[in-house]
Amino acid sequence: MRVGVILSGCGFQDGAEVHESVLTLLALDRAGAEARCFAPDRPQARVVDHLTGQELPETRNVLVESARIARGEVADVAEARAGDLDALILPGGFGAALNLSDFAVRGPQAEVDAGVARLVREVHAQGKPIGAICIAPALIARLLGAEAPRLTIGSDATTARALEACGARHVRCAVEDCVVDEERRIVSTPAYMLGPSIRRVAQGVEGCVREVLRMARSAVPGPTRR
Amino acid sequence: MRVGVILSGCGFQDGAEVHESVLTLLALDRAGAEARCFAPDRPQARVVDHLTGQELPETRNVLVESARIARGEVADVAEARAGDLDALILPGGFGAALNLSDFAVRGPQAEVDAGVARLVREVHAQGKPIGAICIAPALIARLLGAEAPRLTIGSDATTARALEACGARHVRCAVEDCVVDEERRIVSTPAYMLGPSIRRVAQGVEGCVREVLRMARSAVPGPTRR
Repeated sequence: MRVGVILSGCGFQDGAEVHESVLTLLALDRAGAEARCFAPDRPQARVVDHLTGQELPETRNVLVESARIARGEVADVAEARAGDLDALILPGGFGAALNLSDFAVRGPQAEVDAGVARLVREVHAQGKPIGAICIAPALIARLLGAEAPRLTIGSDATTARALEACGARHVRCAVEDCVVDEERRIVSTPAYMLGPSIRRVAQGVEGCVREVLRMARSAVPGPTRR
Repeated sequence: MRVGVILSGCGFQDGAEVHESVLTLLALDRAGAEARCFAPDRPQARVVDHLTGQELPETRNVLVESARIARGEVADVAEARAGDLDALILPGGFGAALNLSDFAVRGPQAEVDAGVARLVREVHAQGKPIGAICIAPALIARLLGAEAPRLTIGSDATTARALEACGARHVRCAVEDCVVDEERRIVSTPAYMLGPSIRRVAQGVEGCVREVLRMARSAVPGPTRR
């Protein structure tokens, strides 16, 4: 199993949530799946001092910072091919709503990075499963909302309404659990949208990865299912 | 159990190894222990583009970057008190040899950051266990080499000789295992000094955390044991 993991930087306030990303890589490796990390080659929307929460007058590149989590093994998402993957997982962190899309700024009208949008749509069109963690389901709602997927971002009412404005159906979910949309082959888990502890987040991420891999093993090869 | 975790930035080439750090926090939380993260408030020795391996003309602060891993919950190591901790763990990454010490440059003659050196020595003097992961045992060798501790950095002969030049006794060890110096209450595991997979590194880190917590539970309260 070759699973694409889309990172969005390195740090929950301006990039990929570090714990969620590492827990995803751990769960994939423990299941015998090969993780292939990708990130967009573009400047971060912002750089935040994670000690103070203040924005810094700096620029950093999403792909370059993602390489910190991926130990250098990360490629430009614009070059990723859905045909080379059996599944796709998007860890969270504010980077999913700042760098992979601008959901943090524009909500239901968000634009999604072109390379990310293409890969998500192609993987989905090939009937392969997608996992979305934390705030990343917002991006899935924006891209695939027309199919009314069942998704969770935990219990935050405002964010849930934004997902529903995209056409998704929001399902409340505990941090240790995940929501499985069997028909649309999408799995989501709230992770640090709820938190608070890394062991509970790990439980949710492990469940998400397990369900994604289960679906990937039962994927029907061949042309688009829909 | 309150366990200090000393971070050295965020990224294995110029800071704390991200996987090792997160795996440490996960193992502690799963064992019911409270992690308290610390890092020195000083500029990184260098900033490395983790995609290319090239040094960048930038400055970043070790404490501020460590906050990306710690989700903002990290304090200046200079303010840490050994009396508030039951044990101490140092994840690896080149930051341990660049920012916590200058072992990468000066080897057995390395200087250790004053706050880190004080905390390690005080925790040790209080009979509390210390865990050291990846290259971090080099720093322990430099500080506590006079006691001839048994330590591992895996199997790299050059680095092992540098540890022995500090007075430590190097023990070869597989990535899934750890070396326990029961008398000196020091546990070490090679992690990404060997790698290559996150699940094997996790196994070693989990063993290291388990042994540190076991020793911490049997720690004799009161004055210095030696």
